Amino acid sequence: MAARKDLVKEETTGITVKKADDMPEWYSQVVLKAKLAEHSRIKGCMVIRPKGYAIWQTVMDYFNERLKMIGVENAYFPMFIPESFFEKEKEHAEGFEPEVAWIEKKEDDGGERLALRPTSETIMYDSYSRWVRSHRDLPLRINQWCNIVRWEVSDVKLFLRSREFLWQEGHCVYATEEECDEEVRIIIDEYARLCEELLAVPVIVGRKSEKEKFAGAKYTLTIEAFMPDGKALQCGTSHNLGQGFGKAFGISFVGEDEKRHTPWQSSWGFSTRLIGAMVMTHSDDKGLVLPPKVAKNKVAIVPIIFDTGKKQILAEAGKVADELAPFDPILDDSEEHSAGWKFNQYEVEGVPLRIEIGPKDIEKRQVVMVRRDTGEKSFVPRKEILATVRKTLDTMQTDLLARAKERLERSMTAAETWDAFTTAIDERKLVFSPHCGEEECEDWIKDKTGGASTRAIPLKGSEAKGKACVHCGKPAAYRVYFSKSY
Amino acid sequence: MAARKDLVKEETTGITVKKADDMPEWYSQVVLKAKLAEHSRIKGCMVIRPKGYAIWQTVMDYFNERLKMIGVENAYFPMFIPESFFEKEKEHAEGFEPEVAWIEKKEDDGGERLALRPTSETIMYDSYSRWVRSHRDLPLRINQWCNIVRWEVSDVKLFLRSREFLWQEGHCVYATEEECDEEVRIIIDEYARLCEELLAVPVIVGRKSEKEKFAGAKYTLTIEAFMPDGKALQCGTSHNLGQGFGKAFGISFVGEDEKRHTPWQSSWGFSTRLIGAMVMTHSDDKGLVLPPKVAKNKVAIVPIIFDTGKKQILAEAGKVADELAPFDPILDDSEEHSAGWKFNQYEVEGVPLRIEIGPKDIEKRQVVMVRRDTGEKSFVPRKEILATVRKTLDTMQTDLLARAKERLERSMTAAETWDAFTTAIDERKLVFSPHCGEEECEDWIKDKTGGASTRAIPLKGSEAKGKACVHCGKPAAYRVYFSKSY
Repeated sequence: MAARKDLVKEETTGITVKKADDMPEWYSQVVLKAKLAEHSRIKGCMVIRPKGYAIWQTVMDYFNERLKMIGVENAYFPMFIPESFFEKEKEHAEGFEPEVAWIEKKEDDGGERLALRPTSETIMYDSYSRWVRSHRDLPLRINQWCNIVRWEVSDVKLFLRSREFLWQEGHCVYATEEECDEEVRIIIDEYARLCEELLAVPVIVGRKSEKEKFAGAKYTLTIEAFMPDGKALQCGTSHNLGQGFGKAFGISFVGEDEKRHTPWQSSWGFSTRLIGAMVMTHSDDKGLVLPPKVAKNKVAIVPIIFDTGKKQILAEAGKVADELAPFDPILDDSEEHSAGWKFNQYEVEGVPLRIEIGPKDIEKRQVVMVRRDTGEKSFVPRKEILATVRKTLDTMQTDLLARAKERLERSMTAAETWDAFTTAIDERKLVFSPHCGEEECEDWIKDKTGGASTRAIPLKGSEAKGKACVHCGKPAAYRVYFSKSY
Repeated sequence: MAARKDLVKEETTGITVKKADDMPEWYSQVVLKAKLAEHSRIKGCMVIRPKGYAIWQTVMDYFNERLKMIGVENAYFPMFIPESFFEKEKEHAEGFEPEVAWIEKKEDDGGERLALRPTSETIMYDSYSRWVRSHRDLPLRINQWCNIVRWEVSDVKLFLRSREFLWQEGHCVYATEEECDEEVRIIIDEYARLCEELLAVPVIVGRKSEKEKFAGAKYTLTIEAFMPDGKALQCGTSHNLGQGFGKAFGISFVGEDEKRHTPWQSSWGFSTRLIGAMVMTHSDDKGLVLPPKVAKNKVAIVPIIFDTGKKQILAEAGKVADELAPFDPILDDSEEHSAGWKFNQYEVEGVPLRIEIGPKDIEKRQVVMVRRDTGEKSFVPRKEILATVRKTLDTMQTDLLARAKERLERSMTAAETWDAFTTAIDERKLVFSPHCGEEECEDWIKDKTGGASTRAIPLKGSEAKGKACVHCGKPAAYRVYFSKSY
């Protein structure tokens, strides 16, 4: 009877669709059942639950360390942005207009209409215009961690699209174009490093086309991950803003030449969307798979309890838990659920390693260790447990990235003819093709393919001399990756 | 000529009023000139600059460690709160009504009016009603770090009052009243500990009167600091919410008795206001004084440079900086400013220790060390520098708290007659008096004294048996601290 009851529970807590069959539904179930996030009753909004927020905290801690090394300091600016600030930089204002939410005016309040920040260039640069006076104030490097509102969205995809999300936005000011270029590049490389080293998500680094660049930027660098359903996911961008915002907001400095100059500026950001990219990349039909570096509890210890020898097994499990303390193990000695139910539960939740301890294991002075990603089972001599767990977690982190890289590479293909291009897009590939660089042509391609857009012009190897645009046949300006996207 | 130029700069960067003469102006100058924060062009808002945010980060890191020990996890809930959520708990809705800012409705959006969170009870408890099912889900302990909007304010006092501020809010759910009571108390004690151990700000712990308690709470515990201008500053509150929100939001659990119960709830928070309390408590006519534990750069090293022996002095200063690396020292070897200008600058910025190294010091194998809080100057043998700096920083942290405690105790007085009471209030004391506990009587007192309100009923020693209310003469319910407040 007990077994039967457990079976019923297993069915209700597990993932009920396959990743290959219905990716959106699968993704939603993985996130919900691992308790990373949930839908809010507020249209367009999500709740980030403790298990999801812990991942974000790990990302913040990791990146704050990197920021310190680069010399970037954290600050906090108001969430409210006056309408007139947007209007100072026209391209920027137009780019964000449909997404902006406004505050209802209070009767006694006077003043102008206030928006909730869809991004903070304008409010920060108003302060910068007072802070930057001399070349000695530069470079100015500031970051903020905050919530962002973009109203456009109404159908929430947990972590991927919501009206409110969390992000970091860096905003730097430089005396010269060269310094600005250099750090725009340093940041996008840091983003790629974060994705690969921490989240085990491989990305393509490149430049956005004129059509896809940030509203108000000179150019935009991007990192693009490629999801298992054949859609690209933009994971972070780093913009060289040129001097446009500086001129619009009256930021200037007296140089060593004692003349007044307009500085160069950059802005860059990534958001809680990264968590979505990570979940989609690694998880499977059993539920969440977490790279060990972002898993809070890296090990789940499940004693296999029978009526006889119970005491001994629990004592042993306790000792193992103590030894594995550096990995924040969960020791699940509850008797409410069967071992099988527990196995499933920790698979749904993405705990990287499971350790089972039964009567036979005690006899043989060993434990059973199961990897969440591969399901690989091994018998670990009791004495070697700490070293083996450490090594296996490292291997798992490396393997997850390697497998994701392999998949990314398999998804990439080149196409120089329209036929080859549309076939590859239909096969949900990331297609590398020569393109004329014209916005209208990009619009046509998007229209004709049901959504393929330019994702990234790689920083190296994008030359397309003598090639024709894959769509319009005009001389190509560069080679660029196309795909459908989130 | 160079000296003259420096003098002019000194005058412009220093604080131009005395703490004792014009505290509001003094406070504002200290915060602005230490670059902790500034006024935003947005009415009612402030910008937290990197030096201010670094203090907040230290507070967050400290408190996150404590939260982990108590078993509280961080999460993030939407900033938007539907109007109907407020209405579910009437007292709560009425309490916050005048402070709430609303989003302008979009044409195609439908749905109801949305507020920006003035506090998150309602939005969180809507989720809790789905998360809490069984006694096994309890206690549920969640905290969030976020921005809060209270529109009422229009005259900003940096860190102390602004339309948007940063805070943490904890929201817990318990099976029994006893557990709830216990943790409401644990949290207020943690708050007191944070204020005293980290910020060196002594506080009075007590209960709020019925009039002053949180809108919708059964009772509120508070920590109150007392500022040098004779006004109390509420630094954090911990509420037992009773079962009211649980009933309003349909939160219930099946107990071990297999019956359905309404749980008990708590909420508790402190905000960036703490930074204001700390600045006011310790700073002086020269500028910011920071407790060493919250100072990012704990030491400023100023080499006294002359044309001869310059190389040797700079080399020595560099060595000292290396040795003092654990304290993130600033090594200021710039030649743009005089040593005197630098001394003033680091005093304005609140660097806890200054170390001077001149030709004589090299000769005598010593450095000069100056404490920011006392101005005390000592000669430290070169070999003892690391140990002396460490010890002096510890002493300074302890001394700051001890001096603030002394001032707090000097400010406290007891009054049992209306005459003694009004005299003490006029003398800007924190007055401990018997009170009837009636809201109307509190209103009268506030009115007649130009603002004195009840601050805290101490958890011990508030008995007032046989005493008459200091104002109305009715039997006293308890003794309570009165004062004017921020």
